[in-house]
Amino acid sequence: MTPQPGSAGDVLTLISAGSATTRSDLARLTGLARSTISQRVDALIERGLIEETESGESTGGRPPRQLRLQTEDHAFAGVDLGATHCRIALMDISGSVLAECEDSLLIGEGPETVLAHVDQRIDHLLAQVGRPRKALRALGMGVPGPVEFATGRPNNPPIMPGWNDYPVPEYFEGVEVLVDNDVNVMALGEHRGAFPEAAHLLFVKVGTGIGCGIMAEGRLHRGAQGSAGDIGHIRVSGHDNAGCRCGNSACLEAVAGGAAIARRLTELGLPAESGGDVVELVQAGNTQALRLVREAGRLIGEVLASLVNFFNPEVIVIGGALSRVHEHLLAGIRETVYRRSLPLATNHLTITPSRTGINAATLGAGILAIEHYLSPENINRIVNA
Amino acid sequence: MTPQPGSAGDVLTLISAGSATTRSDLARLTGLARSTISQRVDALIERGLIEETESGESTGGRPPRQLRLQTEDHAFAGVDLGATHCRIALMDISGSVLAECEDSLLIGEGPETVLAHVDQRIDHLLAQVGRPRKALRALGMGVPGPVEFATGRPNNPPIMPGWNDYPVPEYFEGVEVLVDNDVNVMALGEHRGAFPEAAHLLFVKVGTGIGCGIMAEGRLHRGAQGSAGDIGHIRVSGHDNAGCRCGNSACLEAVAGGAAIARRLTELGLPAESGGDVVELVQAGNTQALRLVREAGRLIGEVLASLVNFFNPEVIVIGGALSRVHEHLLAGIRETVYRRSLPLATNHLTITPSRTGINAATLGAGILAIEHYLSPENINRIVNA
Repeated sequence: MTPQPGSAGDVLTLISAGSATTRSDLARLTGLARSTISQRVDALIERGLIEETESGESTGGRPPRQLRLQTEDHAFAGVDLGATHCRIALMDISGSVLAECEDSLLIGEGPETVLAHVDQRIDHLLAQVGRPRKALRALGMGVPGPVEFATGRPNNPPIMPGWNDYPVPEYFEGVEVLVDNDVNVMALGEHRGAFPEAAHLLFVKVGTGIGCGIMAEGRLHRGAQGSAGDIGHIRVSGHDNAGCRCGNSACLEAVAGGAAIARRLTELGLPAESGGDVVELVQAGNTQALRLVREAGRLIGEVLASLVNFFNPEVIVIGGALSRVHEHLLAGIRETVYRRSLPLATNHLTITPSRTGINAATLGAGILAIEHYLSPENINRIVNA
Repeated sequence: MTPQPGSAGDVLTLISAGSATTRSDLARLTGLARSTISQRVDALIERGLIEETESGESTGGRPPRQLRLQTEDHAFAGVDLGATHCRIALMDISGSVLAECEDSLLIGEGPETVLAHVDQRIDHLLAQVGRPRKALRALGMGVPGPVEFATGRPNNPPIMPGWNDYPVPEYFEGVEVLVDNDVNVMALGEHRGAFPEAAHLLFVKVGTGIGCGIMAEGRLHRGAQGSAGDIGHIRVSGHDNAGCRCGNSACLEAVAGGAAIARRLTELGLPAESGGDVVELVQAGNTQALRLVREAGRLIGEVLASLVNFFNPEVIVIGGALSRVHEHLLAGIRETVYRRSLPLATNHLTITPSRTGINAATLGAGILAIEHYLSPENINRIVNA
């Protein structure tokens, strides 16, 4: 891609970041000719992306007109699809949540049924805030499985029957759609929502399975094939007889995931089917469940200790269903990470339960959509269209 | 930092990347006013950073004047300090090597002695290519220990007595100095020199110890405290009785590093002191040494398998002293990585011995210096000085 310093996209970036609030700021920051600034600003106003108001602070003379994002005319949707739920947040271009909703929804019903439901819910939310359908500019979606990010197609997702290679973006007409793995959008949501200053953050989701979203220098690291963060199949020591659905043994997920803990509790005579059942047993004070969750924390900590040495993150966030009993999980994780990682890497390391909680994914999905829409490349495309 | 689209630094970036070769290109790509372009170009010419020639291709009329980096007036040094060696490459601003040298030098002699040697060698190299001392604009240096990159001070380096917290950059007057851990500069050199298109690359140095340099999206990932890539102290399974100098046990380095292999060979009645001795035994066809190197490869592979799942790199490069017997080391590494990593992450993964070989560090150190010098922030500082 050819860099275009001084393009409309760059001008908008300066305005949305708060670096420039007047035309003079823009001239000073970019070195663009006055006439070029006018051209850029006029194009952005015409496209409804920014507005210019008279409300600047007075310094005696005529107050300078202020430039800012125009937050009235657009809407963005952040969609969080889980195995059994659908959450949606409608946001304006600044990332403020305008309205949200949550339903039970089985992802296994297949893409047509699920996406029709999403589409209808977005219509309801738009109606609720009085914005027309055409105000919807972009939609971000997190799904519980691997996705080829460039095309938005799920890639052999184990718990999403019927979704393999389904062209999700094409379902929604006239709107940009970005689809990503749920733990990636959670990492993005947690970063922007709770730790915007952290250079490097890991978001570890401990649910039925175990996955990790990676923020490096404030951006999602997806890796060469988009499979980065797949830590559920890293080998842990001392469990070589624990077979995993991937065909290997001793995978982290096969011994420390919610499903694995539920299975072991069942073997101990405490019927449990899911991570949610495990959480209920812990909350009811069952000591077997508590012991297994803490032991799972130690095993997760063993893997995270390696990743701390390798990646040296500033923050590790623990989310997912099992984080509802995070005191037990985090005790095990912290114990192992602080024992096995190098002091230089743990001195300033924060290990914390998710602060955005169940909103991490909708927030992150919406931000994915907004940041894509506001990217200089996309703005230049819109302005030059 | 305030972005400055259209600054002299941006203009230089377009020229050095080959995106713009004429003033018209610059006007088209930046949208800057012609007068601003002239101002930027003139300032860059005046500072000796670019030159404008008449040698453009003729299209009938007067050929357009061509802009390009001015490669005559500057020099950059890439310095590779090891435990027992000093290599230096002198480069021009485009990264071409003008001259180089290599000596034995003990890092344990302390910073004053070692840096005086470096300083003198750089003078020789400059004299050799007929450039004055003041042509030296920046110097990059890789050292065998942890470094606080922002200040260029070694940070408790275990094999560099006398260097802890020593302000290396202040030793060299009138020149920008960037100091980094050796494996980081090797990763940078290997990336730019052999795999410039790889989005994500790991450079694993297997010598006396084991370390890793990380390139993410083409840039060095140093982590929150600069300790990223310290994989020598990641735990491997089945070696809980192997104590490590770090105080833990079962560290990768304590079982698969050159020093560890040498120790085990000595125990088997084959005296060896270093990774170099191990290499000699393997090259002489000793089957015990060969077996241990292959086993070390498997253990390194166990750690890399986890990192492949987590980071999803495109290329893993194996360098360092033991890579001189890379066929045996790589056999063990590949065997384990392909068995333990997820297929999606290994389908397009290249695992290869270093292609830049013993030049990786000087090349990377020089490029670190040049890229710092050519950064828009630095160019703007020079032009506005």
